[in-house]
Amino acid sequence: MSEVYAVRRTRLRERCNASGSTAALVSRPANVRYLSGAAPGNAVLLLGRTEDVLVCAQPPDDRVPHNRPDEALRLHVMTGIGGDPAVEAAALAVAQGVDALAVEEHHLTVTRHRAIREAAPPLRLTGVAGAVEQLRVVKDEEEISCLRIGAEIADQALGELLESILVGRTERHLALELERRLVDHGADGPAFPTSVATGPNAGRPGHRPTDRRVEEGDFLSVCLGATYRGYRCEIGRTFVIGTAPADWQIELYDLVFSAQRAGRESLAPGAACRDVDRAARQVLDSAGYAEALPVLTGHGVGLEIDEDPHLTPAAMGKLDACVPVTVEPGVHLPGRGGVRIDDTLVVRPEADGGPELLTITTKELLAL
Amino acid sequence: MSEVYAVRRTRLRERCNASGSTAALVSRPANVRYLSGAAPGNAVLLLGRTEDVLVCAQPPDDRVPHNRPDEALRLHVMTGIGGDPAVEAAALAVAQGVDALAVEEHHLTVTRHRAIREAAPPLRLTGVAGAVEQLRVVKDEEEISCLRIGAEIADQALGELLESILVGRTERHLALELERRLVDHGADGPAFPTSVATGPNAGRPGHRPTDRRVEEGDFLSVCLGATYRGYRCEIGRTFVIGTAPADWQIELYDLVFSAQRAGRESLAPGAACRDVDRAARQVLDSAGYAEALPVLTGHGVGLEIDEDPHLTPAAMGKLDACVPVTVEPGVHLPGRGGVRIDDTLVVRPEADGGPELLTITTKELLAL
Repeated sequence: MSEVYAVRRTRLRERCNASGSTAALVSRPANVRYLSGAAPGNAVLLLGRTEDVLVCAQPPDDRVPHNRPDEALRLHVMTGIGGDPAVEAAALAVAQGVDALAVEEHHLTVTRHRAIREAAPPLRLTGVAGAVEQLRVVKDEEEISCLRIGAEIADQALGELLESILVGRTERHLALELERRLVDHGADGPAFPTSVATGPNAGRPGHRPTDRRVEEGDFLSVCLGATYRGYRCEIGRTFVIGTAPADWQIELYDLVFSAQRAGRESLAPGAACRDVDRAARQVLDSAGYAEALPVLTGHGVGLEIDEDPHLTPAAMGKLDACVPVTVEPGVHLPGRGGVRIDDTLVVRPEADGGPELLTITTKELLAL
Repeated sequence: MSEVYAVRRTRLRERCNASGSTAALVSRPANVRYLSGAAPGNAVLLLGRTEDVLVCAQPPDDRVPHNRPDEALRLHVMTGIGGDPAVEAAALAVAQGVDALAVEEHHLTVTRHRAIREAAPPLRLTGVAGAVEQLRVVKDEEEISCLRIGAEIADQALGELLESILVGRTERHLALELERRLVDHGADGPAFPTSVATGPNAGRPGHRPTDRRVEEGDFLSVCLGATYRGYRCEIGRTFVIGTAPADWQIELYDLVFSAQRAGRESLAPGAACRDVDRAARQVLDSAGYAEALPVLTGHGVGLEIDEDPHLTPAAMGKLDACVPVTVEPGVHLPGRGGVRIDDTLVVRPEADGGPELLTITTKELLAL
């Protein structure tokens, strides 16, 4: 496993060297974990000239086997109180004879950046831009396997909830119960705050659960995900409460389902991100819901729940094989509610069977 | 209520004017909420020359009555996708004739800071440093009332847990149950990830719950808090599982209790933060636990769970009346476990009865 991290660091080093920096300082926690295996206590990674060093404020917790720093890295645990590992790492870079250090300007605050500059004045600070985020886009099979297990856990948690009585329970309680079930089934924790939306709240993207209770006739939309060994997946489904959905509910559901299917079916290596977005969006658009549309119809997932690529009308770039993304169009009608359907899939070539669906809970409209 | 926010903004404006800036851009979410009443969707606050504007990417959610933007503020909801409210606010500042804009350099990333500079080139960007954080240190009675209710909720959740059977249950499940109870009793949510630590984990600061089960003879340390109307409190207690604690457990508990009491009793307006820290720390130090000591023995709480002031050996500054702080010394013995005792208190003058204890769960050593 250790080799994986060394290979990733080599790829980053090549990018840095190509842009004229002899060393890099990685501070964004997900990036540190990607390159080091773990990011204990505000750790930063120095990709040095002579040696790579993981600098952390506290020693790593060695009780979690799959969250330990790569043993090939030198571990530098700070002494003293309140110091910034990034500043300490810059001093180590100077000691290694580094002259130009590439830093994550999209993560470091202005104040931290200045502290690094002032603590290590011979260093010239350059930017590493989103180099690590770019490396993270295409996943290896081990990473995809973590996402797959996370998706199974989310499917299980959701499936159990559907077997219980829902009417009369609040959005908050249903969300908490889902999160408990995620942990029951082996998740590190929820991948993001679980969203449960009932009645007029249903279909609102990013809805935070309230004390509203589930009622007969409601739409109920649920969005949850598990974190498994650091990897985060996402599933969203919408149900109807009661014996029979109303006509407008069936129509709206079928429409969002068609949009989501169009998005899923357009996932392929080489497909433009904006074309995937358009495939889903135009189904809703042509039915007259242009106003009600969300800003994105999907996004990458991995060590963070919202990664590159983004499926939006203005997105640049194309999909590659082995990129996990969500496809999650939805419509919310103010005062009435709405529908969201959200899957996590891995882009795969046609020869391998096309997009791999990780979240397999049914997308039939269930009346609960 | 609206006046409270206007008064706070006036105080910040006075500080900015004193340092030569005609306007300020507040981006740290807790600071935006403090000055505006709410921080919807990445909102930033422009404290302008002619008008104050809350700039947000999405319209505020008006369903939560105590989390709405101050109506005295102009609300500017962005159109389009993916824009940065901070960049938009800088353009509004230019339109108001602002020449020098003070920004939160300790919150803005280097990349965002550059985007603001490039989008509004006539603006000279200066720093507002921690001005809003400083304003937030001393709370008004309405803020303290929110903390008091949050503390009551945490006490209730903890009290109910103590009445249930604990042996055989995992740290994770106990933590989830506590969080469910916090919400049951009216919390917005947990104030921070609930920590439940058993046996050798007990007493570790910031311990993340594992699958270890509670066993007879364990120390069990629990740290939790409620968020109520945005305000976050904290309580930590340590218990013994079984009929009778061992001698070493009683000794260690009494020692930490004495240290915590010494810290509490030294809270007073005008007391130096480092003296409060020393009062608690020297009890543990003189018993030979210098090595096992945490970096801080307490910190401020409010809209964030970790605010100024910090009770550490190197802390500058003194306490004021109406400053809520935690007092939370602890000792962790690797392989054996340990004790933490953590209260949230409000600094009050002697004439008002001295420090006000918000978290009132007993600190007797309970055998459960």
